[in-house]
Amino acid sequence: MEQFKELREKANLLRKWSLISTTEAESGHPTSCLSAADVTAVLFDKYFTYDLAKPLNLYNDRFVLSKGHASPLLYALFGMAGAYPLEELKTLRKLGSRFEGHPVPSFIYAEAATGSLGQGLSVGAALALIARRENLPYKTYVLTGDGELAEGQIWEAANFSSYHKLDNLIALLDINRLAQSQETMFGHDIEKYISRFQAFGFEVRAIDGHNFSEIDSAFDLAVKNNTGKPFAIIAKTFKGKGISFLENKDGWHGKVLKKDELQKALTELGNVDDSLHFHLKKPSPAKLQESISVNTTVKMSFEKNKDYATREIFGQVLAKMGEKNKNIYTLDGDVKNSTFTEDFQKAWPDRFVECYIAEQNMVSVAAGLSRLGKIPFVATFAAFLTRAADQIRMARVSEANIKFVGSHVGVSIGEDGPSQMGLEDIAMFGAIPGTIILQPADAVSAAKLVPLMALHQGFAYMRTLRSKTHLLYENEEEFQIGGSKILQQSRDDQLTVAATGITVFEAMKAAEELKREGINVRVVDCYSINPIDEVTLKKCLQETRKKILITVEDHFIHGGLGDFAAAITGINKQVEKMAVTKISQSGTKDQLLDDAGISAAHIINRVKELVRSAQSVFA
Amino acid sequence: MEQFKELREKANLLRKWSLISTTEAESGHPTSCLSAADVTAVLFDKYFTYDLAKPLNLYNDRFVLSKGHASPLLYALFGMAGAYPLEELKTLRKLGSRFEGHPVPSFIYAEAATGSLGQGLSVGAALALIARRENLPYKTYVLTGDGELAEGQIWEAANFSSYHKLDNLIALLDINRLAQSQETMFGHDIEKYISRFQAFGFEVRAIDGHNFSEIDSAFDLAVKNNTGKPFAIIAKTFKGKGISFLENKDGWHGKVLKKDELQKALTELGNVDDSLHFHLKKPSPAKLQESISVNTTVKMSFEKNKDYATREIFGQVLAKMGEKNKNIYTLDGDVKNSTFTEDFQKAWPDRFVECYIAEQNMVSVAAGLSRLGKIPFVATFAAFLTRAADQIRMARVSEANIKFVGSHVGVSIGEDGPSQMGLEDIAMFGAIPGTIILQPADAVSAAKLVPLMALHQGFAYMRTLRSKTHLLYENEEEFQIGGSKILQQSRDDQLTVAATGITVFEAMKAAEELKREGINVRVVDCYSINPIDEVTLKKCLQETRKKILITVEDHFIHGGLGDFAAAITGINKQVEKMAVTKISQSGTKDQLLDDAGISAAHIINRVKELVRSAQSVFA
Repeated sequence: MEQFKELREKANLLRKWSLISTTEAESGHPTSCLSAADVTAVLFDKYFTYDLAKPLNLYNDRFVLSKGHASPLLYALFGMAGAYPLEELKTLRKLGSRFEGHPVPSFIYAEAATGSLGQGLSVGAALALIARRENLPYKTYVLTGDGELAEGQIWEAANFSSYHKLDNLIALLDINRLAQSQETMFGHDIEKYISRFQAFGFEVRAIDGHNFSEIDSAFDLAVKNNTGKPFAIIAKTFKGKGISFLENKDGWHGKVLKKDELQKALTELGNVDDSLHFHLKKPSPAKLQESISVNTTVKMSFEKNKDYATREIFGQVLAKMGEKNKNIYTLDGDVKNSTFTEDFQKAWPDRFVECYIAEQNMVSVAAGLSRLGKIPFVATFAAFLTRAADQIRMARVSEANIKFVGSHVGVSIGEDGPSQMGLEDIAMFGAIPGTIILQPADAVSAAKLVPLMALHQGFAYMRTLRSKTHLLYENEEEFQIGGSKILQQSRDDQLTVAATGITVFEAMKAAEELKREGINVRVVDCYSINPIDEVTLKKCLQETRKKILITVEDHFIHGGLGDFAAAITGINKQVEKMAVTKISQSGTKDQLLDDAGISAAHIINRVKELVRSAQSVFA
Repeated sequence: MEQFKELREKANLLRKWSLISTTEAESGHPTSCLSAADVTAVLFDKYFTYDLAKPLNLYNDRFVLSKGHASPLLYALFGMAGAYPLEELKTLRKLGSRFEGHPVPSFIYAEAATGSLGQGLSVGAALALIARRENLPYKTYVLTGDGELAEGQIWEAANFSSYHKLDNLIALLDINRLAQSQETMFGHDIEKYISRFQAFGFEVRAIDGHNFSEIDSAFDLAVKNNTGKPFAIIAKTFKGKGISFLENKDGWHGKVLKKDELQKALTELGNVDDSLHFHLKKPSPAKLQESISVNTTVKMSFEKNKDYATREIFGQVLAKMGEKNKNIYTLDGDVKNSTFTEDFQKAWPDRFVECYIAEQNMVSVAAGLSRLGKIPFVATFAAFLTRAADQIRMARVSEANIKFVGSHVGVSIGEDGPSQMGLEDIAMFGAIPGTIILQPADAVSAAKLVPLMALHQGFAYMRTLRSKTHLLYENEEEFQIGGSKILQQSRDDQLTVAATGITVFEAMKAAEELKREGINVRVVDCYSINPIDEVTLKKCLQETRKKILITVEDHFIHGGLGDFAAAITGINKQVEKMAVTKISQSGTKDQLLDDAGISAAHIINRVKELVRSAQSVFA
């Protein structure tokens, strides 16, 4: 009698339902499931500790499916563990099903939404990091494909994992040779993976991923691993394993079996007992992340005649908030002395995560931290947040609760030149549904808005300024998400200038000069860019002579404040966008604001043009 | 007499001007220049072959400064080579100077704009690849910092370089231990770098980066390298080398010397002869990339009753264009059977570059190809182009001539779910100044627009559809960048529905149904999203009863077609945006279009609401 007979049958039950569900759905990636069925069957059968009733139990082991297209395998695993009947997998990829094409949060056992490749190891590293820092006993398993090992983020995550000595992290590499359109770069040259992961500081065990004895002894080693190094099980596997006409055959990626092919395949699998189950070990006791309902109000006061950089205030407030809220984590990409997250590091080193210059990993680590109830603040130059645009996109699909802070926005940073200027960040975050976007122009508003970001559940983004600015507000002034402040108004305003961040000061300068020339304009500080303050802006449009709103921002012209303002409906209006329309250069702040056409002088000219023109289109 | 006395003095002249120029500029990164002065002095003194009069001479060696913040070093190197007087370096970082804070194309010797770290090796790999494929003799040198080796893209580029056997590529790794805010992850643990680069397939030579004899023998080996492996010179160096109070000292990143500190430093350097020069070997003969002024018109005709996917047509047209224009290259991230660039690969394998699943490297490789006159087409899923948002941003700063094609846009892809849906791509490309954005809805328009992308000098982006669509146009129809097509109109149109891509068909369905109910609406196919067809849309606004324009797009609501339409000025208008406002899910195309609120049924409802409401805001 074969030692692993039942295990083999369980793996075949995973195969069976990977095939049935995808054929039923008429789309999906069955062959990518088949290669990993044996490895994951052993994991769930013998090693995985999990409380199905409490996915967020902090004693649960963690399983991250980095190769998200193998979702039917994930669904079959938890089904066989008893989370739901396998029969329900027939709803795969159908509207309203929890079994989407790639895992999303409606599947509550998914640690993260995956499907954009190469992100799972970072998520897993975050989960393993929490266990390390909070002395929790669980293991984190990450199943990756081989195609996705080409993504640079994998190596960012590998460095991160070995640097942080995450020997509680176990990467399962499903080296099935075939990617989507052809063989991977290395095919079955397993040595290539061994040398790379060893060089990046992993303890490595290479196995035949279809040999249960080898799989089992690899897991046995992995769970006992206390070398200080993360563990990689490099499994040589075959795509489509177990079905003769699929196994190791090219041209089957993302293809499903027709009904007759399915029958043939199921016949090959033989009589697989549908009642086979994984009996997961349940951890005891249960422990959940403590709730975050704490007061994040931070008292600060600023001196009237002093200038402050909003980035500095952000750092100070963040450090203070860390005291009251122990779930706040801060992540840095080696710019903490520019973003001022170094203040947080000094105060709360245990909740500070240095990610070095690897923004993609940083964002996905934040998504992992959020999964277990942390409130991660991710800060770098706004320009360098674009490095992680895909990870930000996927973190949003994961419904992660991340606070992003981008410093050094706009041409106003000056001499460093265009590579360092954040000029597309509002467009990037603005496109992502439900993302709060804030840009305080002075110290008071910065100090009041940072806590509101923390309290907001979901994505929030704040732009901070490189240069110091004057105070606009009294220390007692209050601010809110979706708010704005009218800084200057009269009974005879011609039009409204809505500015944000550094351009608020240009707008104020322009308004003062225009006033001297007998032209009154209203000036609004749109510190909340999304949501924008519709009520106030509508009121301004109604109360000014021309129904004109000029928006001025240190951001590229498409996708910024101007487009949020232009989207206000239900009112006569003409929105004139003043923003950056070309690649900037090196120069002083004032030279570049002028060169970009968003200085006080340009605002004055635009206002005069619009006011003097015989009539506005609405007059 | 010391063997390397003059070389040492030349290196010190590089140091001197790195210090003078940054002190003069009052900002910059002098210490990052000092660590690499010795290595680059040897390169320029003995190995670098270059025709200063013709930077694009295809026999020139190539020098890529990946650590862009060391720009003063780059400027001093070419100054000492005779390109301009060193005295001109005093204009560093001043408005209008060619010596910007980080290299940009106005410095004509820069192979790429750098300053976002970790991108230079990819650019260099592209340059080395051209030499390989076109049998050119030049070497490509890439100077990287150590901080930036944490970026995953470095490892994507490393895989790419060794996979393509680029033994004409020489990476110079300036391991100066100190990054911006602290020591790098590995400090001076050189073994960490040796093992990583060896594992990734490099021939490696580790040296003392301040020992001229070691530097020279490393270069000697590197230029003779014919192992089939790229070469890495791993130089252990000291940040601030040569100046006692800077050398190996923390806290000096991005800081410049005050005038008195500069004097002290120059005194330490001693009497450095300003007339010292690098006498670059000039390559002969000169060869420039052939011009691209060829006809890219492609004749295709389509069958009336057949459906076509625009992504398939893109692939076919691209393959045909490849015949007429030998400068066209195509880059793939292992989705060529989805984007249909496989057609190009089959026809022109020598100009097809498989980049595997590593989008960041793919885009920076394209920037490198563009530098030497190629016209790279970069194609992957639109969603995965976000993976390279920062590289796209930097390629634009480089003024690269790249054509991007994103397939599988929108919720209309269906069952695969949100991770695969390109819904922020218009926002991303729209923010980048001067980027053409096209979205053909049918085969005819796709076939006509792809050649226009190739002819356009600069960035152009095309969205292609997953699903097949009906023909909208006759084979003879003509299209242009900035154009649109009115698909349905009457003398009694209530308002205009402007759609793009898949929503054109929803708008047409809606218009037909509305017509049956006695409501005429005009339908416009906005196949050119940027620039948008202002003339036609203004005409539509003027000619319809209500001054209402409804935009409908399979893209998130911020930053898409709607915002381009709303930005049209000089006319009374009300723009109502219909677009995706939430994270989508798995389902069929039609279910998801409806779920997202952009189906024909939703358009019908919105039109009725707007038409029935007592009056529009302008009525």
